[in-house]
Amino acid sequence: MQHKTIAWSRGAARLIDQTLLPHHIVYLTIRDEKAMWEAIRVLRVRGAPAIGVAAGYGLYLGVARKSPRTLRELQRLAEKVAAYLATSRPTAVNLFWALDRCMNVVRALDPQTNVKDALARLLEEAKAIHREDEETCEAIGRHGAPLLQEASGVLTHCNAGALATAGIGTAVGVITTAAKTRNFVVYTDETRPLLQGARLTSWEMQQAGIETRLITDSMAGTVLQKGMAQAIVVGADRIAANGDTANKVGTMPLAIVAKHYKVPFYVAAPLSTFDMKIASGAEIPIEERGADEITQLGGVSTAPRGTKVFAPAFDVTPASLIAAIITEKGVLRPPYKKSIREAFRS
Amino acid sequence: MQHKTIAWSRGAARLIDQTLLPHHIVYLTIRDEKAMWEAIRVLRVRGAPAIGVAAGYGLYLGVARKSPRTLRELQRLAEKVAAYLATSRPTAVNLFWALDRCMNVVRALDPQTNVKDALARLLEEAKAIHREDEETCEAIGRHGAPLLQEASGVLTHCNAGALATAGIGTAVGVITTAAKTRNFVVYTDETRPLLQGARLTSWEMQQAGIETRLITDSMAGTVLQKGMAQAIVVGADRIAANGDTANKVGTMPLAIVAKHYKVPFYVAAPLSTFDMKIASGAEIPIEERGADEITQLGGVSTAPRGTKVFAPAFDVTPASLIAAIITEKGVLRPPYKKSIREAFRS
Repeated sequence: MQHKTIAWSRGAARLIDQTLLPHHIVYLTIRDEKAMWEAIRVLRVRGAPAIGVAAGYGLYLGVARKSPRTLRELQRLAEKVAAYLATSRPTAVNLFWALDRCMNVVRALDPQTNVKDALARLLEEAKAIHREDEETCEAIGRHGAPLLQEASGVLTHCNAGALATAGIGTAVGVITTAAKTRNFVVYTDETRPLLQGARLTSWEMQQAGIETRLITDSMAGTVLQKGMAQAIVVGADRIAANGDTANKVGTMPLAIVAKHYKVPFYVAAPLSTFDMKIASGAEIPIEERGADEITQLGGVSTAPRGTKVFAPAFDVTPASLIAAIITEKGVLRPPYKKSIREAFRS
Repeated sequence: MQHKTIAWSRGAARLIDQTLLPHHIVYLTIRDEKAMWEAIRVLRVRGAPAIGVAAGYGLYLGVARKSPRTLRELQRLAEKVAAYLATSRPTAVNLFWALDRCMNVVRALDPQTNVKDALARLLEEAKAIHREDEETCEAIGRHGAPLLQEASGVLTHCNAGALATAGIGTAVGVITTAAKTRNFVVYTDETRPLLQGARLTSWEMQQAGIETRLITDSMAGTVLQKGMAQAIVVGADRIAANGDTANKVGTMPLAIVAKHYKVPFYVAAPLSTFDMKIASGAEIPIEERGADEITQLGGVSTAPRGTKVFAPAFDVTPASLIAAIITEKGVLRPPYKKSIREAFRS
């Protein structure tokens, strides 16, 4: 894909503004932590791995622009900026993982380190997160592709593609890797309310030259009932130590319907999306978003004035409904408590 | 509700244009069968019972405006107009039921009947269908309301309300009747692609003063998982002799998720929605609609140019997932083959 979700260029982060896709391709130059916070908050950059990469750069930018004079000042400032960026969105754990990873570098600096070197180390860590995500996506694609070798139709929800990562994507990376050696049709849930499937996954499929059919989220039931898709692959925003998976709202009912029709339901995610500090999905905070995202679409009002909403942005799919979790370390199978622990050890 | 879905006035049918709701309240005066065909086709009038009522008037209008000179001419013309109106939409059986009912009157006319009397009989039958639908809705509401007496939250999909019928609605009639003696929150699926839940059911709930929360279709999973709704009531477009039910796409996956979380799933429909000629849902023709309904919303494009879609307008919920079917003859329980047959006999 020629479009870069996120890039580091001349001391700033460059993001493609995903709220304007697919009709307008606009790149934003992000020079401070406030602009990065806003970009994450309103989903100009979205997708758990991409949010992690963005957060790393955001932390560096927030510290560097204040030109701290001492290492102590830099460290205090970094704590503040990291805490601030952590408030941008609550569910995708990669945000916290990336900030923690950078802060561990900042905290562990030798007290003799000069400010210039400290800043360089911080930027280096942000870039490492970025670079590793590319490699991780490649590995996920490689491990997951064989799971689709029998399918003539594959279904996905939301966008876990190149736009959600710094690489070829997680779920979409599995699909595009498998599509190199096999033809199938990809059924893409449009993914209300923000239509990441319609706007982003359809666009990526079109660019990759993969046959695709857009469906509304509730048409997935018919696709599975009629045997039009033989596998489902989705991404993840946070996976608990037992395999329970938070992902874009609509994932969990899709997994239930998949079980009903005996279609294997796969999750593709890097280890950075696992939260080993929580035992189950019950502990994952689920972001609720504003009414406008449901009652308006592209400036068009879709409901009577004053309509109240319930708007969870994510849901939690119990591990029992997941046939396998595809990671950069390989394909994890139930029982997940064991297979996840082993993946972190290897 | 002060707004009339359909009315007969001064020799014409008056319809509220449901494609413009809730933001614009526009009444259409329909004077011929072509305008009625178009109104049904593009969903200016929709909902299985309302389509039946509209078809009856459409048939009369199509015959009357040609001023047939003989009874034979009238009968031939009626056959033609009925066949034409039957092509407007394929799934809701009330369309065919209403046309058949009117045609049975036309076919059974004494050969001595003069044209004026024959037209009067045809209009009388159309009005009878209209009037009976009002009474039927009341009875469905009365029979169904006790099923919601334990619920603090009720979920519905699409619009099976006053706008879908000539009366208080089927599923929504059950809800508004129950709400007279009990407070609960109604969770309304927005119902993509045409947003009948967001545009029509939300509006009806607002007018009825019932507490409601609009959700995207895939948020229903979370509502059920969290125990926020203890019952689901939906309408139907066609019910087979074994209880398999075609309704707006998204109904079947909702029923599967309801079963998973042990939430009772009720269908509310008049006997005119049952198709006793077909043994199971496999025989119900499912309408597929145009790509624009998915790739555009209120003139806003939601997907890349050239995106292909799969767009079934309905799906079939197997009878095994339905806890009860609420009819004007009472609440039918499994086994449905038996209880449905008995309802038609009583």
